[in-house]
Amino acid sequence: MTAIATTVDAEQRLYELWAEIRDLKSTEELLDWDQETYLPAGGQGDRGTTQATLAALRHRLMCAPELSEVLSACAETADGGGELAAQVRVAQRYVDLERRIPESLAKALAKARSAGTVAWQRARAEADFSKFERELAELVALRREEAAALAPGGSPYDAMLDRFEPGATEAALVPLFDSLGAALTPLLERVRDRGLEVDESPVLGDFDPEGQRRLGVHAATAFGFDFERGRLDATAHPFCVALTRSDVRLTWRWQRDDLRPALFGILHEAGHGLYEQGLPREWWRQPLGDPGSLGIHESQSRLWENHVGRSEGFWRWLWPTFTDAFPEHAAGTDPAAMWAALHTARPSLIRVEADEATYNQHVIVRFELERRLFRGDLQVPELPEAWDALYREVLGLSAPDAADGVLQDIHWSQGMFGYFPTYTLGSMISAQLFAAAERDLGPQEDAFEAGEFSPLLAWLRDRIHRHGGRFPAAELVQTATGRPLSADDLLRHLTSNLERAYDL
Amino acid sequence: MTAIATTVDAEQRLYELWAEIRDLKSTEELLDWDQETYLPAGGQGDRGTTQATLAALRHRLMCAPELSEVLSACAETADGGGELAAQVRVAQRYVDLERRIPESLAKALAKARSAGTVAWQRARAEADFSKFERELAELVALRREEAAALAPGGSPYDAMLDRFEPGATEAALVPLFDSLGAALTPLLERVRDRGLEVDESPVLGDFDPEGQRRLGVHAATAFGFDFERGRLDATAHPFCVALTRSDVRLTWRWQRDDLRPALFGILHEAGHGLYEQGLPREWWRQPLGDPGSLGIHESQSRLWENHVGRSEGFWRWLWPTFTDAFPEHAAGTDPAAMWAALHTARPSLIRVEADEATYNQHVIVRFELERRLFRGDLQVPELPEAWDALYREVLGLSAPDAADGVLQDIHWSQGMFGYFPTYTLGSMISAQLFAAAERDLGPQEDAFEAGEFSPLLAWLRDRIHRHGGRFPAAELVQTATGRPLSADDLLRHLTSNLERAYDL
Repeated sequence: MTAIATTVDAEQRLYELWAEIRDLKSTEELLDWDQETYLPAGGQGDRGTTQATLAALRHRLMCAPELSEVLSACAETADGGGELAAQVRVAQRYVDLERRIPESLAKALAKARSAGTVAWQRARAEADFSKFERELAELVALRREEAAALAPGGSPYDAMLDRFEPGATEAALVPLFDSLGAALTPLLERVRDRGLEVDESPVLGDFDPEGQRRLGVHAATAFGFDFERGRLDATAHPFCVALTRSDVRLTWRWQRDDLRPALFGILHEAGHGLYEQGLPREWWRQPLGDPGSLGIHESQSRLWENHVGRSEGFWRWLWPTFTDAFPEHAAGTDPAAMWAALHTARPSLIRVEADEATYNQHVIVRFELERRLFRGDLQVPELPEAWDALYREVLGLSAPDAADGVLQDIHWSQGMFGYFPTYTLGSMISAQLFAAAERDLGPQEDAFEAGEFSPLLAWLRDRIHRHGGRFPAAELVQTATGRPLSADDLLRHLTSNLERAYDL
Repeated sequence: MTAIATTVDAEQRLYELWAEIRDLKSTEELLDWDQETYLPAGGQGDRGTTQATLAALRHRLMCAPELSEVLSACAETADGGGELAAQVRVAQRYVDLERRIPESLAKALAKARSAGTVAWQRARAEADFSKFERELAELVALRREEAAALAPGGSPYDAMLDRFEPGATEAALVPLFDSLGAALTPLLERVRDRGLEVDESPVLGDFDPEGQRRLGVHAATAFGFDFERGRLDATAHPFCVALTRSDVRLTWRWQRDDLRPALFGILHEAGHGLYEQGLPREWWRQPLGDPGSLGIHESQSRLWENHVGRSEGFWRWLWPTFTDAFPEHAAGTDPAAMWAALHTARPSLIRVEADEATYNQHVIVRFELERRLFRGDLQVPELPEAWDALYREVLGLSAPDAADGVLQDIHWSQGMFGYFPTYTLGSMISAQLFAAAERDLGPQEDAFEAGEFSPLLAWLRDRIHRHGGRFPAAELVQTATGRPLSADDLLRHLTSNLERAYDL
């Protein structure tokens, strides 16, 4: 045990201990990335063992008495609003998440998640919710137990939210989601009543995957993603992982007959990657050095995907490259038609295939169901019926079977409750940030057409990226935009686009 | 601290602790592999930091008092010749290697290796040994210090050898190398005096790299390498790394105008990989589960590369595939001509480009120089002159400058003294194993021509692979072949090939 003579020593020691933890996490991330990209098929079982060992080692470092001691020593003298206090607050939160969960519960959760994933896969393949019911009930029960351990006496669902979005509460989110849902419904009714069918042929065709990849890399590079400090590989499900500030890895997938999964997938992950590459170098391997909020992270991906990548200016800029990649296809369309094809609004059953507007309705349904489950108003066996009722009510649709209904997402099978809301939070934040950026920088459409993405990136670097994990999402949004987080800008963005696309 | 109630508890605990250490090593290996394959160029610096942290964590686990305690508890009751005693002996050796070196020395060595590599690169680029002299002298001094810490009062060079080849001593190796060198000289004089030039055109041409890769994968698969539990990627320098028993990764490089680097590189690394895939599954993550001897490891790669891959039977089997890959080239030659082209013997300056016979002379020179350095008979500033004198004496050649002379290898710049001898040990062992296999199985030429490599692999699995790291190389060779290790079979192999190739 190191004797802690002074606060300077304690602070120094905190950073040394945190650096080890971050390096261990970095290697866990490499193990995960490799598992999705290059791990031989026969190597999966042993890889799981290695991953479990690394997780246990990191748990041990997080629970080391010395770390708690230096955190206490730092907390005693840190200035409440200062940087050190924020370092301590963030570190203490992660330490608490590890320490407060009894080992027996952690093991039970790991086992239930594994069993849940297996059961969900089978249940989904057979479109039979009953095959997943017992495992899901167990996961809900264990997460409620976890909530009691993390925040004794508090709201169980708030504890779930807090794991992904520190500081988020049901009380704060419900008005946001209610205001969004209340305005989305009449907007989408106007679209429906207009009876127009937007022509989607500009995004449909036969697109060589290598051409799609090059197009995505070209745009991501223009946005400012540094491929000298990052890379792009193919995986079944796209993701972004930052092993270090100089090693940020994006992944992508493609569909031959539809441009959108590859191109917007790459732009989305590049948005995450731009954030990771822009985090403060001086905080690397310190508690504040990594993003703290999934909502903020998602806002960065959605901003570049939706507010930049779906803008007509962007498509005017991309057009020569698009024409080079797919000359015959491009000859039959133009940027305005492309813009329209990217702004459809059509209720559908599957969240991950939904358009920008109706996507939020899928999240609203899940948020409502999760709240009921954790309040105890809804029992797991009643979930399929509740799902169907809400889909009818919110989206006006009913799934033919559970596979396209309540079993469509992987999240619950891994015990991830409270995650879905961060998707729509990300959409709200992205719209609010983009509106603020345009207030500061002027409308960006012409800049995009000229290939000038750096003013926007610089604005995000200044307002968001450089703050690392220092501020909770709500505070960061308030400071960055001068306004409290609301659904207004997202609604304005969706309304304006749909009014144009559907000639409302 | 766990109370160790019984030996069974101690044994169980030893395996638990060792499993963590092996999993940590596995992730370090992934970090290294990734660094050579897919790490973005800008990510190198941060990767070095991550690697250093992981190495320090593993050092801490190896030096944990609990591990030493369970090793002592196991040693007390283990039957001397039994499996547990071997587990303890192997584990204790690794623990000693970590514990006996003071932290200050370990840090100084890490720093000197890093400085040595940088200096060597510059010195080599400028062909100026003086730019590397100080750093090399420092490395020799630190390694002598390390030798004193590892084996107080012992021979410094024996301590160096033991790090790579447990149990190897100068006293045991010198007679082997002397007998090899004494017989090689007259053999190569006979070749020189014959005045024949072997036609190398069968291996020279314009070979599409993808075709070369497919050819190598085809042969490695036929040998028995399981690509479901392994893979092949391109790197600057070929290597093989076993992350787990089910994740064995080979790498390769190619030259468009010469078949040999790619094909024999893949066969060589596949030989290493076959060994790793064949190690006992039940010992995985136990001290005996990994190979203990570099010489034995190298024997496996050289056996498949030289005794199988350069045989005429192998080439007769490969010919249809070779013809498919390179039809025009294959039409102009045949397996017999290919065989001859692969059995040249021509003194040359660069070790890694040397043929199978003269390769050993390059090692003999380095072995002699390392012994002198560690005996104190030779000082670092005198090294270039001694190098030149030995190359003239042994190979009859003099390098035009230090870049193609004393600066050609990376090993010394990383403080790796005692490594070179394992290359020729590997050649000797491979020849002795192959001769024993043919005594047991009959001549393999016809089997190879029929594509039957599994009898040989099964023999190696039984005699070598299944024993993991249980026996020192000398004991394993004695048991596997019924004879003490000698240079005889290697000399017979080289003599017979050269007599045929050069019509002696």
